[in-house]
Order: sequence, then C-alpha cells, then structure tokens
Amino acid sequence: MKEKISRATLDRIPLYYRTLKILNDGDEEIISSSKLSKILDITPEQIRKDFLDLGQFGIKGVGYRVDKLKRGIENLLGLQYRWHLAIIGVGHLGTALANYKNFPILGFQVSALFDVDEELIGQKINGVKVYDFAKLDAVARRKIIDIGVITVPDTQAQKVADDLISVGVKGIWNFAPTKISVPPGISIVNEDLSVGLTKLSYHLAKL
Amino acid sequence: MKEKISRATLDRIPLYYRTLKILNDGDEEIISSSKLSKILDITPEQIRKDFLDLGQFGIKGVGYRVDKLKRGIENLLGLQYRWHLAIIGVGHLGTALANYKNFPILGFQVSALFDVDEELIGQKINGVKVYDFAKLDAVARRKIIDIGVITVPDTQAQKVADDLISVGVKGIWNFAPTKISVPPGISIVNEDLSVGLTKLSYHLAKL
Repeated sequence: MKEKISRATLDRIPLYYRTLKILNDGDEEIISSSKLSKILDITPEQIRKDFLDLGQFGIKGVGYRVDKLKRGIENLLGLQYRWHLAIIGVGHLGTALANYKNFPILGFQVSALFDVDEELIGQKINGVKVYDFAKLDAVARRKIIDIGVITVPDTQAQKVADDLISVGVKGIWNFAPTKISVPPGISIVNEDLSVGLTKLSYHLAKL
Repeated sequence: MKEKISRATLDRIPLYYRTLKILNDGDEEIISSSKLSKILDITPEQIRKDFLDLGQFGIKGVGYRVDKLKRGIENLLGLQYRWHLAIIGVGHLGTALANYKNFPILGFQVSALFDVDEELIGQKINGVKVYDFAKLDAVARRKIIDIGVITVPDTQAQKVADDLISVGVKGIWNFAPTKISVPPGISIVNEDLSVGLTKLSYHLAKL
C-alpha cells in the first residue's frame, strides 16, 4: 500500500467503502471495476488506479475480492478503531449530525453531545445524552472522545477547540465558518459548505 | 484565465474569495501572498500558482490588487449572477442550511423552502417561506430556482431531483446519502459528510 495517498483519492474512498460494505453484507464476494463504475459513476480506469494505490490487484477478467478490498480500506483509514465523536453545539446542524445515519455505517460512534443551553442539557438525541459543556473535563474522564465536532457559532469555535484539545481530543471537525488554530499533532478538518455551492455555480455559469 | 481549473484549486477558491471580500470591505487595496498565506494556512507558492491560474499576476514585491482578484474569482465562478436556491426538506439539516450565514456573503440567496409537512408549510425560516412541495410547479413559475438543495430522506431524493429538473432547475446540491441520477446538462454536487470524517480518521490512525 502507498504510504501517502492523494487528497483526491481520499475523497473517493468513502464512496468505495460504503459500496463494498453493502456488497459484503449482501454476500457478494467478487466485484469488477466496470460494475463498480456503473454504481459510482467513476471511470473503471480511475477505480483500478485507486485500488492499486490501496495495494489491491484484483484478478484479471474476474474482479476484486470484496472482503479483501473492504479490509484494505479499513486498515488504511483506521476504521478498525471505531472512533468516538462528541458534538459540541446542539443547534439544527448539531442535531442533524447527531441523527446522521452514515456515521455508524462507517464505524463512527457519537458518544456525547454538549451544549451550554440549560433546556438541552440532560436531553437525549438519537439515544445520546446532551452534557453541560462546562463539565467537559469530567465527562472526558469517563467517555472516549477521539474527535470533537464543532457546530457552535463562529465566535465560540476557537475556545471550544482549545477546551477540547486541553482534555486530550486529537481530532477536530469544524463546521463553524471560521478558521481555527490548532497545535502540531492535532488533526483538523474544516467543513466548508460553501465549497459545494461554489462548484455548482462554476458549472452553471458555463451552461 | 485557464479554461478549466483543477478540482483542488476549485476547493480553495471559496476560501480566497471570502477573505478577499472581507479585505475589500475593510478598504484594504493590496494583499501579499505571504500575508494571505498566514491568514489561510496555505503556502505562498500555492497561492501564487492558484492566482496565476486565475489570470492574476500581482506586482513583484508588493502584492495583488484585492478588487481585481475578487472580480476575477466572481467572473470565474459566475458569482456575479446571484444564484437562487430552493431547499427541499425542512428538517434539522434544511433548517441549518436556511440559516447558514455564508450563503449571502458568497452571493447566494435562499429564495424558497419546500416540505410536505402541513405543520411547516406557510411558516418562515430566516425570512423565507416554506411552500408545499406538491405546488413546486406553481411556485417555480413565480420564483427563480437555479439550484435545488436536497435535504430529504434517501428514499425521496431521486423523486425530488426529478421533480426539480422537470420544472427547469439546472443545479442539484444533494445532501441525502444516496446516489441521484441526472440527465446531461444538469449539474450535481453530492455533499457527503462522511468524507471529512474519513480524512480525520486517516490522520488519527497515523498518530
């Protein structure tokens, strides 16, 4: 397997993984790149190149072993670890994420929700409890938090990130439309919803 | 300007644009690549390459004209057109998007919301009315809908897309975690929230 895969490949891997999981659950043992191509709308050449990067060669004229491919992706992405998420900010976006059904499919688990609103604290969303963010330190001693999902207003985002990092959280997934600084050794992914929209605009302007 | 810019560049452009807009509103007329680099955490070399792709050369030792750069991006992305969005599905995610404050900053306008829930129809969210999706055809004759934002359950997503396309919508922004088929000439962007999470997992697994 390649030591470092490209960003574009990394974007496609969740699509492959989701499909392989469904095939595997459905007892399909072999999949060809041309069949995957039809399901995913990615060229067979691209699929073969990506799988080669993942260290999977397939069998000429037959296809790929679904279970091997699936396990290869799991190892690459660290999905065998079952990462635990905490969502901070239980507004509409936080609630939508708490209910997002693809997280469990991918092996991620929402283990805690946090807010500062008295009305929300103590409630459960999709079976997960909302804790007082002021008690983050105490909660983090009892529950695993690998990734902190930030869905608070801009002005609070940096402070929330700092607090998460101070209790040992190593990954930050930021939905607040603002830049967050993190020290070395902490992973951050900024989810910017305007990126998708800008792509659409670019294509529409060419029509 | 290049005829076709790369996907990776297209991902960075919204970041540039947001920053240039803030600088322009703040009366800053010149920006250097090294200053932008500090703001955005992108290398100065990458920024200079991207701006060259946008047809902007800058002034050696001084920097780039903020207004020219901003206008160049607007032209490239078709942002001068002020695209109108309709959001279909006023659940938590739809409501979060209806309230997303970066859309107006980027020049996008939410012009209508749709749902099938009697309790929601007629209400306003962030000043925008919720219409009955069964009346899409009539509403689309009175209001501009360039882009349909799909935030309905998986099982409804394809039908909603078909209905949108049948009333002349040319762009689909799909948040439902399912594949939607569209005819040629229609742009589609699938927003897959698990992509960001998978990237975090990949980095955390390497720690």
